[in-house]
Amino acid sequence: MESKYRELKERAWAANMEIPRRGLAIYTFGNVSALDAKAGVFAIKPSGVAYEKLQVDDMVVVDLEGRIVEGTLRPSSDTRTHIVLYRNLKGLGGIVHTHSTYATGWAQACMPIPIYGTTHADHLAEDVPCTALMTDEAVGRDYETETGNQILECFRNRNPLHTPMVLVAGHAPFAWGETAEKAVYNAAVLEELAKMAFITRGLSPEAARLSDRLIRKHFERKHGQNAYYGQK
Amino acid sequence: MESKYRELKERAWAANMEIPRRGLAIYTFGNVSALDAKAGVFAIKPSGVAYEKLQVDDMVVVDLEGRIVEGTLRPSSDTRTHIVLYRNLKGLGGIVHTHSTYATGWAQACMPIPIYGTTHADHLAEDVPCTALMTDEAVGRDYETETGNQILECFRNRNPLHTPMVLVAGHAPFAWGETAEKAVYNAAVLEELAKMAFITRGLSPEAARLSDRLIRKHFERKHGQNAYYGQK
Amino acid sequence: MESKYRELKERAWAANMEIPRRGLAIYTFGNVSALDAKAGVFAIKPSGVAYEKLQVDDMVVVDLEGRIVEGTLRPSSDTRTHIVLYRNLKGLGGIVHTHSTYATGWAQACMPIPIYGTTHADHLAEDVPCTALMTDEAVGRDYETETGNQILECFRNRNPLHTPMVLVAGHAPFAWGETAEKAVYNAAVLEELAKMAFITRGLSPEAARLSDRLIRKHFERKHGQNAYYGQK
Amino acid sequence: MESKYRELKERAWAANMEIPRRGLAIYTFGNVSALDAKAGVFAIKPSGVAYEKLQVDDMVVVDLEGRIVEGTLRPSSDTRTHIVLYRNLKGLGGIVHTHSTYATGWAQACMPIPIYGTTHADHLAEDVPCTALMTDEAVGRDYETETGNQILECFRNRNPLHTPMVLVAGHAPFAWGETAEKAVYNAAVLEELAKMAFITRGLSPEAARLSDRLIRKHFERKHGQNAYYGQK
Repeated sequence: MESKYRELKERAWAANMEIPRRGLAIYTFGNVSALDAKAGVFAIKPSGVAYEKLQVDDMVVVDLEGRIVEGTLRPSSDTRTHIVLYRNLKGLGGIVHTHSTYATGWAQACMPIPIYGTTHADHLAEDVPCTALMTDEAVGRDYETETGNQILECFRNRNPLHTPMVLVAGHAPFAWGETAEKAVYNAAVLEELAKMAFITRGLSPEAARLSDRLIRKHFERKHGQNAYYGQK
Repeated sequence: MESKYRELKERAWAANMEIPRRGLAIYTFGNVSALDAKAGVFAIKPSGVAYEKLQVDDMVVVDLEGRIVEGTLRPSSDTRTHIVLYRNLKGLGGIVHTHSTYATGWAQACMPIPIYGTTHADHLAEDVPCTALMTDEAVGRDYETETGNQILECFRNRNPLHTPMVLVAGHAPFAWGETAEKAVYNAAVLEELAKMAFITRGLSPEAARLSDRLIRKHFERKHGQNAYYGQK
Repeated sequence: MESKYRELKERAWAANMEIPRRGLAIYTFGNVSALDAKAGVFAIKPSGVAYEKLQVDDMVVVDLEGRIVEGTLRPSSDTRTHIVLYRNLKGLGGIVHTHSTYATGWAQACMPIPIYGTTHADHLAEDVPCTALMTDEAVGRDYETETGNQILECFRNRNPLHTPMVLVAGHAPFAWGETAEKAVYNAAVLEELAKMAFITRGLSPEAARLSDRLIRKHFERKHGQNAYYGQK
Repeated sequence: MESKYRELKERAWAANMEIPRRGLAIYTFGNVSALDAKAGVFAIKPSGVAYEKLQVDDMVVVDLEGRIVEGTLRPSSDTRTHIVLYRNLKGLGGIVHTHSTYATGWAQACMPIPIYGTTHADHLAEDVPCTALMTDEAVGRDYETETGNQILECFRNRNPLHTPMVLVAGHAPFAWGETAEKAVYNAAVLEELAKMAFITRGLSPEAARLSDRLIRKHFERKHGQNAYYGQK
């Protein structure tokens, strides 16, 4: 009677509820999933349900082949994108897709977000990457799987835990992390970076990227072997 | 004693109350109507009443000839525009007029909103259209009826349920839907699309529209015969 | 014991409290006054008091010569500007000074706000005027009185009740109305017009003003002899 | 048992809690410290703790050599920057570091914020200064101390109490004041000035600075010997 995925669904639900609270989506836009790597399943938002009405038991548990393991609602239409990412990017415990306003503005312009400052370097050591546009041929195949492939292609030579976010060209951002909670944090940071960079570029279209030395310093302050930000 | 339009007025009232809640208008700006197609009447916001004070019984019930059927207040000054739309665009169950900030910014620039991304294509498969400017001659006739005609002219070759929103040049947006609730949803989505497109254009004035293939894919994912977004 | 200006102070206080509620100022910025034309006195916000702490009895009652009639606090440092306006612009019952963000952005650019759309024309039938810059000589005289003179100079050939708002170049906006409540309404509308026009100009630096015919139509719909907006 | 730094920690805590309330930072970004000049110690936010969870007893008390005097958590990673400023800029009683959106946008563009209007001149009599970029060599030394030195270099010929804010190039703003409360006020004012100036520059890239005469007038109205703003 009590689901063995109760805790997983609770984590997924709590992370989804952060989406409207952080202003990252309106109505039913966006979705978060939380992975149980050992069990090989993840819990994800049902498709087209408004956040105001979302309940823990609405979460849908899906395995990495796309089979519904638990739940009575249809899972997010982006479920197959999540599957591609979980199967191919190692270490992910949560994935978020939003249409947050500024990040989507950059994705629509098909432009990576330049690493203009230390707020950015605190979180990733390069521009926020932007995928190539999906080819018409790929659109004609399984669209959501192809969205995952579009991201994989972009991450061929990247460490997804060091660059936990991406802009899908002409579409919108995805972010991820070791947990669903961390994934939403990264999605919110991305939106803030996107807004700051919009302002910087508006003031100075030729604004320079941060120096490599400073990028390294800030990134390692938070993420390196000798990180000294936060509590131990 | 109990009005036979009670439920219609309640739907119109609830939809009107979404306008300030979604940040789509300040003070008394904007109005929503809900149609009872069988009865040939609609309930609409009274003119110049602030949302904070709006009551269900303030709604005015008007027939498609413009006669007041129920209510003690004057209906919205835009009532005749609603009538033109209900009489000529088939399938509308609700209409919204707002002066939401970004959509109005585009309407004032007399520019359609380019279909830059999938957020847009999820809702309509073309640019958000912008009407021609009203001629001085038309302004001199019945102004609110002419505003409706301005929109009709723009929708001569359009399916209003596939393109449920429009910018009236030099003025502001209208949106509609099969219900008043859906109409407000479309008005809120329009404001978000207008803001995203403002950001995209600020970053890259030459930003390209989404490919036709991708537009079709996204639009049909939500609206086509084999739509698979949301719950069945 | 009971002040004969109680009601005047209450009106001034309530109008001042709208300033933070409408997002028109932070901290102690801004001030509103309410005039009792018969008594020849007005109640105004005390200088440098935060809105969160403002009480009705903090309002200072001042006559049109600038003498404090009631109150223990210092009146707003802009009091003499209010006096110049009340003495010279006929029909004003309330005056508001804010540093609202977008209107101040235009004032700092020393640019009038073009009448791009009907939201604007619903409230005034011309661009929001911007004064000339204050000369160094005038700064050296009584500064707050000179701010009033700067506005008067700009309104030499204007009807202040038809154009109830102004940008003071290099400074910030003033707005007014027949009551203090209406003055705050005009200040909030000005901020919205300023934001919409910023967006329009960002999209299209050559955007055209509304046609004279349409300006007249909208303005008279709300303000003309045959106005038909709102309830009778 | 009762800490002798209780009141200092309470002041630091209250000032830190203003950061999210004024919208100056998300998550754990930003930090405020409050100095007890006599005791030669200051209380500062612990590193990486979210504002929602922050308690008075989480504050860390540190002396001007960087030794922890009281507290069980690690102090902010920016603590050494605060120390450099307290030791070298006379009269500071509180320091704030934020990554507020518009101010950071200017800092990333490595541009001082032009003194376009009186809102700015009410608070400082010159552009908001922007430091030089940190050299790679300095990054390789003690980074947080060097951030302090970067600011000191910029303030060689400036009175820090007359110019209570700075942009660190490629990074973000710092602000300060005679108390921690005043420091947060200055940080919030800076964000507002940054947004207003972004709008002004967007409207008119050649917008002129305020005249020296008017700058002096406004600054002295609030800060000069004969200041007449606020209550005595």
